[in-house]
Amino acid sequence: MTRRPDGPGRAPDGQPPAPAPAGGSFLEMWRELLPLGRHAASRGYRRYAWTGADLDCRAWFADQAAARGLTYEVDRNGNQWAWLGDPEAGDAVVTGSHLDSVPDGGAFDGPLGVVSSFAALDELRARGTDLARPLAVVNFGDEEGARFGLACVGSRLTAGQLTAADAHRLTDADGVSLPRAMEAAGHDPDAIGADPDRLARIGAFVELHVEQGRALDLSGDRVGIASAIWPHGRWRFDFRGEANHAGTTRLVDRRDPMLTYAETVLAARREARLAGAVATFGKISVEPNGVNAIPSLVRGWLDSRAEDQASLDTVVDGIEKAARGHAEAHGVDLDVVRESFTPVVEFDHALRDELGRILGTDTGITVPVLGTGAGHDAGILSGSIPTAMLFVRNPTGVSHSPAEHAAEDDCAAGVLALADVLEGLARR
Amino acid sequence: MTRRPDGPGRAPDGQPPAPAPAGGSFLEMWRELLPLGRHAASRGYRRYAWTGADLDCRAWFADQAAARGLTYEVDRNGNQWAWLGDPEAGDAVVTGSHLDSVPDGGAFDGPLGVVSSFAALDELRARGTDLARPLAVVNFGDEEGARFGLACVGSRLTAGQLTAADAHRLTDADGVSLPRAMEAAGHDPDAIGADPDRLARIGAFVELHVEQGRALDLSGDRVGIASAIWPHGRWRFDFRGEANHAGTTRLVDRRDPMLTYAETVLAARREARLAGAVATFGKISVEPNGVNAIPSLVRGWLDSRAEDQASLDTVVDGIEKAARGHAEAHGVDLDVVRESFTPVVEFDHALRDELGRILGTDTGITVPVLGTGAGHDAGILSGSIPTAMLFVRNPTGVSHSPAEHAAEDDCAAGVLALADVLEGLARR
Repeated sequence: MTRRPDGPGRAPDGQPPAPAPAGGSFLEMWRELLPLGRHAASRGYRRYAWTGADLDCRAWFADQAAARGLTYEVDRNGNQWAWLGDPEAGDAVVTGSHLDSVPDGGAFDGPLGVVSSFAALDELRARGTDLARPLAVVNFGDEEGARFGLACVGSRLTAGQLTAADAHRLTDADGVSLPRAMEAAGHDPDAIGADPDRLARIGAFVELHVEQGRALDLSGDRVGIASAIWPHGRWRFDFRGEANHAGTTRLVDRRDPMLTYAETVLAARREARLAGAVATFGKISVEPNGVNAIPSLVRGWLDSRAEDQASLDTVVDGIEKAARGHAEAHGVDLDVVRESFTPVVEFDHALRDELGRILGTDTGITVPVLGTGAGHDAGILSGSIPTAMLFVRNPTGVSHSPAEHAAEDDCAAGVLALADVLEGLARR
Repeated sequence: MTRRPDGPGRAPDGQPPAPAPAGGSFLEMWRELLPLGRHAASRGYRRYAWTGADLDCRAWFADQAAARGLTYEVDRNGNQWAWLGDPEAGDAVVTGSHLDSVPDGGAFDGPLGVVSSFAALDELRARGTDLARPLAVVNFGDEEGARFGLACVGSRLTAGQLTAADAHRLTDADGVSLPRAMEAAGHDPDAIGADPDRLARIGAFVELHVEQGRALDLSGDRVGIASAIWPHGRWRFDFRGEANHAGTTRLVDRRDPMLTYAETVLAARREARLAGAVATFGKISVEPNGVNAIPSLVRGWLDSRAEDQASLDTVVDGIEKAARGHAEAHGVDLDVVRESFTPVVEFDHALRDELGRILGTDTGITVPVLGTGAGHDAGILSGSIPTAMLFVRNPTGVSHSPAEHAAEDDCAAGVLALADVLEGLARR
């Protein structure tokens, strides 16, 4: 870590800080990406799969590949690849992330990984590293699932975790199907599906990502290595009571599902705290949702994640038990439906240890190994190929928000750590 | 109360029970009204002002006037009147209610009053009562405010409590303005406004309404007289926190407004119970309302009502204090906005006592006097003319719901009580 950042300080008007270049290229790339898909009022990003903003980002990616003389490909699922070396040679070392965003997301979640990947390639070229394995930068399509409701569509399709038939059934809020959206953007929807041959040519995938939490901030480290993605799931709680007049119905005659919902929200916080996990009620739907009507239905969605399966079970069971107790006390009916669930993802231990060795040996920095509650393309691919992740410090932990940011020094440290990893894995 | 109901029992398939005719006419009217504006799936009514369903109900009203040879009028604000006697004579005794509904409302709230009014007129004619004062049945337009968001538009305009200019600014959820809706329904929107001459010709207004609570059920009475409409209001609580990733943000780093909302919902119940009042959070709006996002904003609407102003102040102050305490503890910002407020409405004491005397003397039944938490056209008019209300027992207290109902015996008792009142007030 001899190179120091020399970029400018924080930009005005709530813009993300401009991270320093590594090899001079980072800042230029960052500046080009910043305005794409940014919403004027919210200052957040709305880069949804296959929309104009996404296509702008994809054009940017293709330009970066071309500017470096890299071999550019779009695979059958719309993921973009930029190769240094022969894509067909096999045992490739691939890095990258995604460029799409959640609604009003930040500038870093996804793009930091893609920009850092190109910057790390520039760094290796500047070092004159002699490469024994092909390298590639990848932009996985539709990671956030903001438009079609399913996350990691590009990597899921490639890994065979989502069938073409199921993908063809996805539609956005306006009723536009994924195939229609792909076609409108110039991609053949009939081509999509599992891509085992492509994966078979990859020896390792390393994704760099801004941390979506404060573990590195609390430990005082710039960069960390992922150990695992916590098991996580979504549960829908349907509380059914009885609609009635809010002005005239005695409290004792009410079957008010909002009360049970409120008790359950607080129970979720309590259970998560006790287990060292997280639990969130962030989405709600109420019927009839009238100011002077006791609701007939309150539907709340629980998102919960924990370090291991047993802890997660304890949390969700505890919340459901509390909800059922309160529902019974208030004459409210309760249905709990598990809408999705992802078991724990352990990243490849050998690759994880190799990253620790490379970064420890070559740079002398301390690299903590930490779990995360967020899903990533790396989590999807880890079922098929050796996969690892690097996290870059997030001083506030804020993510999925326009306020998401990372310091320029830390971004520069991330680029150099990624360059060291790629060099350590791929040099002759 | 010598007449006994002889109508059929409860109709099949969740239909409201068919109340017995008083003078044979009630049941026929009820059967004609039942299918109008009823939603097939919910079995509830969707009779919104100036829609096709409302126009069907209004046509039914005009038919009833014609069938009885009553003088039919539509006033400048679209309220319908059916006169027995000279509308210009003055000192009229008017009864009636409304025919529109809340979303998926019941069959009784409003229509019971209108149908009972015509049936009571039939009863007086059958008795051969010699009338010294003109009588009228009225159907006030847009009482529920389901379409344009403001309740009692017809009576408010007439009483000068809503200006034509303000009414012209009302729009429905589809952006259709009230004037456009009126015009499309054949009513001149430029004619609307205060109607003091009309009110000056009315000596008393008596509205019969299904009770929206269980006071009569608990006291064992079929019919009651209103004393007052409780003071009531709506307050919007805006809880602002920080949007963040639900999977990766540590609990201690969160500023989650959903937690503060939940605490406030429970505080509202507690404060209302302590004061013998009611408080309800029935409407909510959440941003971004995503399953994996801690909300940035939770907006909850409080409806609260109490027997007197001091109690209501205690309840709302207590809720706000609890909300502020929890907001501070969770790093959440709170704004509380009073969106509407109606002070206590005391019905005319002389008229109330006169009704008690008439019903006590003429029928021997016990007639309890009770307050109500619900707003009514009678409450609006009570600021201009002597006004009273009769309530008919609601065995479950359920209202604003397809399950709302009243027993046929009780409906018949209501018709006869109303006939007695009209006779007592208007006979020579």
